[in-house]
Amino acid sequence: MPTAKPDQKIIRILKLRVTDKPGFLGQIATTLGELRANIGEISIVAQGPDFLIREISLQLEDEDHWQKVQSGIAALKGVEIEDIIDPVCQIHEGGKITVKSKVPVNSIGEIRRIYTPGVAQICRIIEKDISMSRKYTGIGNSVAVVTNGTAILGLGDIGPVAGMPVMEGKSVLFGELVGISATPILIDSSDTNKIVETVKHIALTFGAIQLEDIKAPECFEIEDRLIKELNIPVLHDDQHGTAVVVLAVLTTIAQRTRIQLSRSSVGIIGLGAAGTGIARLLLAYGVKEIIGCDLRPEAVSLLKTYGGKAGDLKAVMEQADIVVATTGVPNLIKPNMVKRGQVILALSNPDPEIDPEIALAAGATYAADGRTINNALAFPGLFRGALRACATKFTDKMKIAAAHAIVAETKTDNLVPSILDRKMHQAVADAVEQAWFS
Amino acid sequence: MPTAKPDQKIIRILKLRVTDKPGFLGQIATTLGELRANIGEISIVAQGPDFLIREISLQLEDEDHWQKVQSGIAALKGVEIEDIIDPVCQIHEGGKITVKSKVPVNSIGEIRRIYTPGVAQICRIIEKDISMSRKYTGIGNSVAVVTNGTAILGLGDIGPVAGMPVMEGKSVLFGELVGISATPILIDSSDTNKIVETVKHIALTFGAIQLEDIKAPECFEIEDRLIKELNIPVLHDDQHGTAVVVLAVLTTIAQRTRIQLSRSSVGIIGLGAAGTGIARLLLAYGVKEIIGCDLRPEAVSLLKTYGGKAGDLKAVMEQADIVVATTGVPNLIKPNMVKRGQVILALSNPDPEIDPEIALAAGATYAADGRTINNALAFPGLFRGALRACATKFTDKMKIAAAHAIVAETKTDNLVPSILDRKMHQAVADAVEQAWFS
Repeated sequence: MPTAKPDQKIIRILKLRVTDKPGFLGQIATTLGELRANIGEISIVAQGPDFLIREISLQLEDEDHWQKVQSGIAALKGVEIEDIIDPVCQIHEGGKITVKSKVPVNSIGEIRRIYTPGVAQICRIIEKDISMSRKYTGIGNSVAVVTNGTAILGLGDIGPVAGMPVMEGKSVLFGELVGISATPILIDSSDTNKIVETVKHIALTFGAIQLEDIKAPECFEIEDRLIKELNIPVLHDDQHGTAVVVLAVLTTIAQRTRIQLSRSSVGIIGLGAAGTGIARLLLAYGVKEIIGCDLRPEAVSLLKTYGGKAGDLKAVMEQADIVVATTGVPNLIKPNMVKRGQVILALSNPDPEIDPEIALAAGATYAADGRTINNALAFPGLFRGALRACATKFTDKMKIAAAHAIVAETKTDNLVPSILDRKMHQAVADAVEQAWFS
Repeated sequence: MPTAKPDQKIIRILKLRVTDKPGFLGQIATTLGELRANIGEISIVAQGPDFLIREISLQLEDEDHWQKVQSGIAALKGVEIEDIIDPVCQIHEGGKITVKSKVPVNSIGEIRRIYTPGVAQICRIIEKDISMSRKYTGIGNSVAVVTNGTAILGLGDIGPVAGMPVMEGKSVLFGELVGISATPILIDSSDTNKIVETVKHIALTFGAIQLEDIKAPECFEIEDRLIKELNIPVLHDDQHGTAVVVLAVLTTIAQRTRIQLSRSSVGIIGLGAAGTGIARLLLAYGVKEIIGCDLRPEAVSLLKTYGGKAGDLKAVMEQADIVVATTGVPNLIKPNMVKRGQVILALSNPDPEIDPEIALAAGATYAADGRTINNALAFPGLFRGALRACATKFTDKMKIAAAHAIVAETKTDNLVPSILDRKMHQAVADAVEQAWFS
């Protein structure tokens, strides 16, 4: 299986003033190559009598690497650094989402239809029959993306405001991939009761709730209680979005090998939100043996309540046909621990428990990391399908249907479809909707 | 002063199949005129060998009136009713707002910049310096429009979901008039503590809070506590938005007459949210005498704590130079109660305490109702200015500055500017921003 090189972590655009004679760009490209900087797009943005202004997009390892690249370019004759652009900062300026009107406001007539006095007619219709709110408001097409900032990406407890760029990113994906109107909600508490109460009190505003980047073990109780107490779908993406994609990838691998997923022994290393969610969905799918390990005994106890077995890292690596690691610990799995023929999904971001190339070299049949197993493959379609069905919750059936739809949309030369594939997201949504009604 | 006729309450579009010969449209228009239906736009939407399909937009008094108009048209020869369209329902289908991405998602490179792994860089910047959230997220441009549905328009306690069309309407106006991203938040509680706690726990998500259509007296405590406990601007629009527009209109009237506002006696009939807010702002502005009346003694007591005097309806009408009524009781003010030269603002929607034309005929110098005194003249600029200033609250100075800006933008042939006048909203925002820093 082909795997990409480890992520280049920094993206920068170098704006250079270059002498307009043959050979200078070659010199720049050669220097960048020698310094192991990945070159992206190169464009000419201005022209002088004897020089060009070129913008060169670069991917770099880290800040040190970036400093070295700048020094290398600065040392070239006939080349001057005019400016440095950080496209990630640039694209985030002012935020990534906005609430937009779907109707124009250019006449008093329009205001009278969308606001007073016309709007009163719609209020009265909904007052008489609250289900009409699905027809005449945006509630049925909206999702709250709720976090308290305690487990943002791999960055940990950085607070809800620092987590906002991730929530806005989720909203962008919801909007662009499946047309859902998703609103970030930042909650300034790590108290389970307060979070549950707050979400409950605002839940009428939305058609569904996505819990996001809330740390374990609080995330389990928060999700369980909200599922019980609300009559709209609630899903903690870190648990179930990831689980759906893992199930899809394992199903695809099983189809391409002699592995029978339900009869395999699956080892889960790390029983946080993702690990526990994966274990639960695989058990619901029918996998007979799940062996889990975690440094926190209560996490292992929780797994046992769902029907999993306790192990340790050594036991898991020795016994499991399939290993799924979600520990946040880079390079936890050493090459000599890999069993010949094992499937290894090392999901910690940005640095996996074992690099897929190293795992394959050590004898694994299949290996992938968090860049492949991306929950953005699952959550847009899951919510689109649930909203369309007016479902009151997510069932295991819906999650398994989503995984199967992802498998069906996976091309033979890859383990997963493209996140950009709108047809795939609609197929997931259709499968989820049907699963709710079946 | 010219006033419009009382509101036509229903808007419908008649889709008619009309014989394509001269005279038929005249017959239709004559019939509609005799039946007192206001004709708006007339368009041809299709054409047959010997007929035309015309859509005729109508404004009607009420359902009875609409039934009579339909019967009248149905009785005409050569005319058939093909369809009836309700443009208010039509424009509300699917809701009026949506959360939109400001960035395209068409390549994996874009996803890597707006989502993982690029987004982590922005999270870290904000983690180090939380003020950077104003630069790199939409928080600083966003307002929560919060209601619990207890005082929706003039409809009363119809619940938060039935109030959603109004909240979406506010969002539309925020977005279209001043480019603010406004998110409705429906709270399913009428308990003051729960509302305050809920808003506090989600307040980090927003740059400011607009409280909306929450009934008195709870609205006062909710607003007071949130202003004290949050460091972002909080404003109950029903109190202060209306008050700013009333102050603007009274200032304009004062400029056009010999009335000196600060030396006038102002009577407030009805001390709910709007009446109390108006009294407070006029007192802050320097009006020496406010006489208020309300059937609820506690409302009158509250007015006294702000420096107003207690009266009754008779006393107010006899003593006040300016009368502002916000009771929700149609036709409460009889023509014989109007004092010669009085200014009368009868603000209850949709039916005022006295029709402005009747008040003028009874001797009032100026009279206006809720169609003129529309808080959408004030709230967009108030919030735009406060957000731009990164203000931590709304001060009386900011509200008075907003009123003065509205006055400056009012043309001599009217009492208020047009709500559609974006330049006016920007002028209000500029004045509010300056008032925060002065």
